[in-house]
Amino acid sequence: MTALERSLWGWGHAQRFPDLEARRAQGELFQAALGFAIGEPAAPAALDEIQIAKPRVPVPAELEAFTRSDLEARVLHAQGKSYRDLIRGFHGRFDNPPDFVVSPRSEAEVERTFDWAAGANVAVVPFGGGTSVVGGVECPLPPGRRGVVTLELSRLSRVLEIDDVSEVARVQAGALGPVFEAQLQSAGFTFRHYPQSYTHSTVGGWIATRAGGHFATGRTRIDAFVESARMLTPIGWYESQRFPSSGAGPSPDASLVLGSEGTLGVITEAWLRVQRPPKFRARASLGFSSFHEAAHAVRSIVQAGLQPANCRVLDPVEAQLNQVTHTGDAVLLLGFESTDHPMSTEVQRAVELAQAAGGRLSGPVRETSTGPTEEADRWKQAFIDAPYLQNVLVSCGVIADTFETACTWSRFEALDRGIRARVGKVLEEVCGAGVLTGRITHAYSDGVAPYYTFLAPGRGGAELEQWEAVKEAASSTLADLGGTITHHHAVGRVHQRHYSKERPVVYGEAFRALRARLDPSGLLNPGVLEAQ
Amino acid sequence: MTALERSLWGWGHAQRFPDLEARRAQGELFQAALGFAIGEPAAPAALDEIQIAKPRVPVPAELEAFTRSDLEARVLHAQGKSYRDLIRGFHGRFDNPPDFVVSPRSEAEVERTFDWAAGANVAVVPFGGGTSVVGGVECPLPPGRRGVVTLELSRLSRVLEIDDVSEVARVQAGALGPVFEAQLQSAGFTFRHYPQSYTHSTVGGWIATRAGGHFATGRTRIDAFVESARMLTPIGWYESQRFPSSGAGPSPDASLVLGSEGTLGVITEAWLRVQRPPKFRARASLGFSSFHEAAHAVRSIVQAGLQPANCRVLDPVEAQLNQVTHTGDAVLLLGFESTDHPMSTEVQRAVELAQAAGGRLSGPVRETSTGPTEEADRWKQAFIDAPYLQNVLVSCGVIADTFETACTWSRFEALDRGIRARVGKVLEEVCGAGVLTGRITHAYSDGVAPYYTFLAPGRGGAELEQWEAVKEAASSTLADLGGTITHHHAVGRVHQRHYSKERPVVYGEAFRALRARLDPSGLLNPGVLEAQ
Repeated sequence: MTALERSLWGWGHAQRFPDLEARRAQGELFQAALGFAIGEPAAPAALDEIQIAKPRVPVPAELEAFTRSDLEARVLHAQGKSYRDLIRGFHGRFDNPPDFVVSPRSEAEVERTFDWAAGANVAVVPFGGGTSVVGGVECPLPPGRRGVVTLELSRLSRVLEIDDVSEVARVQAGALGPVFEAQLQSAGFTFRHYPQSYTHSTVGGWIATRAGGHFATGRTRIDAFVESARMLTPIGWYESQRFPSSGAGPSPDASLVLGSEGTLGVITEAWLRVQRPPKFRARASLGFSSFHEAAHAVRSIVQAGLQPANCRVLDPVEAQLNQVTHTGDAVLLLGFESTDHPMSTEVQRAVELAQAAGGRLSGPVRETSTGPTEEADRWKQAFIDAPYLQNVLVSCGVIADTFETACTWSRFEALDRGIRARVGKVLEEVCGAGVLTGRITHAYSDGVAPYYTFLAPGRGGAELEQWEAVKEAASSTLADLGGTITHHHAVGRVHQRHYSKERPVVYGEAFRALRARLDPSGLLNPGVLEAQ
Repeated sequence: MTALERSLWGWGHAQRFPDLEARRAQGELFQAALGFAIGEPAAPAALDEIQIAKPRVPVPAELEAFTRSDLEARVLHAQGKSYRDLIRGFHGRFDNPPDFVVSPRSEAEVERTFDWAAGANVAVVPFGGGTSVVGGVECPLPPGRRGVVTLELSRLSRVLEIDDVSEVARVQAGALGPVFEAQLQSAGFTFRHYPQSYTHSTVGGWIATRAGGHFATGRTRIDAFVESARMLTPIGWYESQRFPSSGAGPSPDASLVLGSEGTLGVITEAWLRVQRPPKFRARASLGFSSFHEAAHAVRSIVQAGLQPANCRVLDPVEAQLNQVTHTGDAVLLLGFESTDHPMSTEVQRAVELAQAAGGRLSGPVRETSTGPTEEADRWKQAFIDAPYLQNVLVSCGVIADTFETACTWSRFEALDRGIRARVGKVLEEVCGAGVLTGRITHAYSDGVAPYYTFLAPGRGGAELEQWEAVKEAASSTLADLGGTITHHHAVGRVHQRHYSKERPVVYGEAFRALRARLDPSGLLNPGVLEAQ
């Protein structure tokens, strides 16, 4: 994996971007499936074609040994991986590159960076894997500052300790998903938290953004894995104690660490709950005549107290695009897993409940007790690889993005209908065509997290404007219909305006007060969570 | 229930305090079981024997219609229900009565109370059921204030709305456990959260103190039930939106509401997750040759991913005192429940794991699918009634109190040994005798919540001093050995000093800053969470 280079503009590794012919072939397939014209694929700007602003501040002597300021480093840390980032990067546009990129090798070097930045009046953007889809790592020059630097944590990526009695691991925040997992596996443990960004995002990034994993119920969000955390704030080190649970005052981690998005400190370490590898798996898939019927099945399953690891619903178009079925059915994918015991009764009961809600089994219920099936491996790989498709679509001029939310069950159907109607209309208006697809990713006893993808023909040069119109329609419709602005993509700069309306006014006041205390000169990731 | 009067000094209803003869008989039983001399029971101070300080501020005209300032009201709201409170109250000592007691009938009257208090420079102590065991509702006159009033919420106790699709109920904060439950049951729902204080504590109190319920795993803490909350702060209304989950910034409820202990606002309402009544139950009990062996069984069960509703361990002395067994075994009580499906495989697997850890089944595994068994009802009643015993013990001169914590599994055995050794030694030193018993109340994949009871002979007039020495030994030993100062009893004034060392320093700074913003003149429950 070390030989692979990160794409300058798109998702993942540069070598995974298909050649022109392959992209053309994929474009044709998409054209047939989506029903609108898809253009000839173009080539992304090469490094030597990219022109970015000159650094505003030079690298100081005290940071030199662990800092890069070359073009490639600055480009690679200039923005995240949303559609907005990809379309700009594809055309060689990097609006807000950091002046340089600091890569500390120790906590002492993180401290040194903070000290320098405070003295130099330079903003600091904490950077994990850089996979933000909400503008979380792209920082325009804040008013009154001399510059902006990125503090990236890839050199702090080790598992430092495993408490194998308590099944908890102490890991540095810069570990990418697979890097963390490899170290755990060599000690007989595994993590079982798979955000779609898994291969290119970090433990610290997950914690800072309250990432949602692939699991549909139970430990869905990174919050549930965090036993304690360690974070450098501008006023000193924060470190919570290792308790499995405590009722002493408000939770310090929930107040300051989880969801802080780099605005209160830089997370350097955490103790995370791990587990023994799952041994027993049971899976089934069912077809439904509508998305809402399938959602109803999900509701029965979670309200019955069952906790499937996988409980995804794909609407008919998603099911077709993902080659899961071509029957026109919505599909419910059910999966249970356990380290300890067979999941037979759970999967059978879930299937019964799904059938009672109108589901038709697509094949036999499958169970294994010998580790993952080949099929499960294939599916996991396809899920993890999905973002690579976005690279191809962008190169073919397609606007391709996703958004997600969570709402109570009682609001779900109206929200889903409202999103489809309103976003569908705006896609027509601003793009002349477009497809909106939906799925369900996470389920709770009281509600559900729907996830939407939109695909539409871009007009060369106008794509950002078109995208913005669609995104705005989606965000304001979510707010109108009782959905949160984000179930797991975070707030960043893109959702900041809607977030400021969503959170309680009094909480906003409290947050500003505590932030002013922790980061008195406002150096950390300004513009995220709060308007500048 | 309305005809029952609350005890002025002790737990629960006054009518439940046994007569002299019955107390004498219970004292003799305890003497035999505990092995130290238990004195002749005394009688508590009657209302007309109680002398308390005169009110420092008169009732203002604008609060008169919903305020009491008579002796009984002031006594009933002067302190909580810990041993420290009981022994003082028994002897007619109420050190810090509020000047008067406000009982708002509406949110508008809560606002009016805040407005008056700010203008009059009087501190306000929010009061749910008054069952605090940590000095959470007893407020000495804070420096610079003119007085202290109690704001009690018993008149705001209605279920206002039920979303039966999402299985969530909107309830006013002043509802006592049974009052909330009765309203839910008439709509076909139930809550399933049973702190031991259940009958006399309120929804708002549970939320403000992050109460732990009786359930050992899963939704153990009230936090897991709260979908959204509404709270009046001195700068205005706080209200979070109804989302099943959201990743937008730090959780506002976790930051400001849960665990705020009346220092940031008065909770008036919440949307709480409810459920259909459980239909299937499965239970088993096993004996172990030691407390640690039984704890090991609990660890296997939770790390296997099983989620028993009940998974208590009683050490040999607790098992004997509770008449569960007289074999000298530690006992593991296992219970599973479901609204939807039989728990046969779960209970069987849990029993297997417990047996592998050395457990011996005490009888057959029992399953029902017709609601609670008589046995389960009896057990629940005994659990809920346990605090009444403390009244009797106090009347017989016995120092009787509990403390609890949570720690990682890797620290559990050393912590348990350390607590028994140190607290045992201090009991000998300051009381000449004493018994310390332990149980396990809650279990997590990474750790456990042990719960201890101590019983020792008090020296007439010196009990508070003796109690303080034991409590201090317990609290500092917990801190030394990696346990939190409280898993679910909260911080209040009693744990404040230890809490201030336990929480991260940076979090303390942040909390003070946000509190200064929300309650600029520091009127709400001063001395709780923060030193005055």
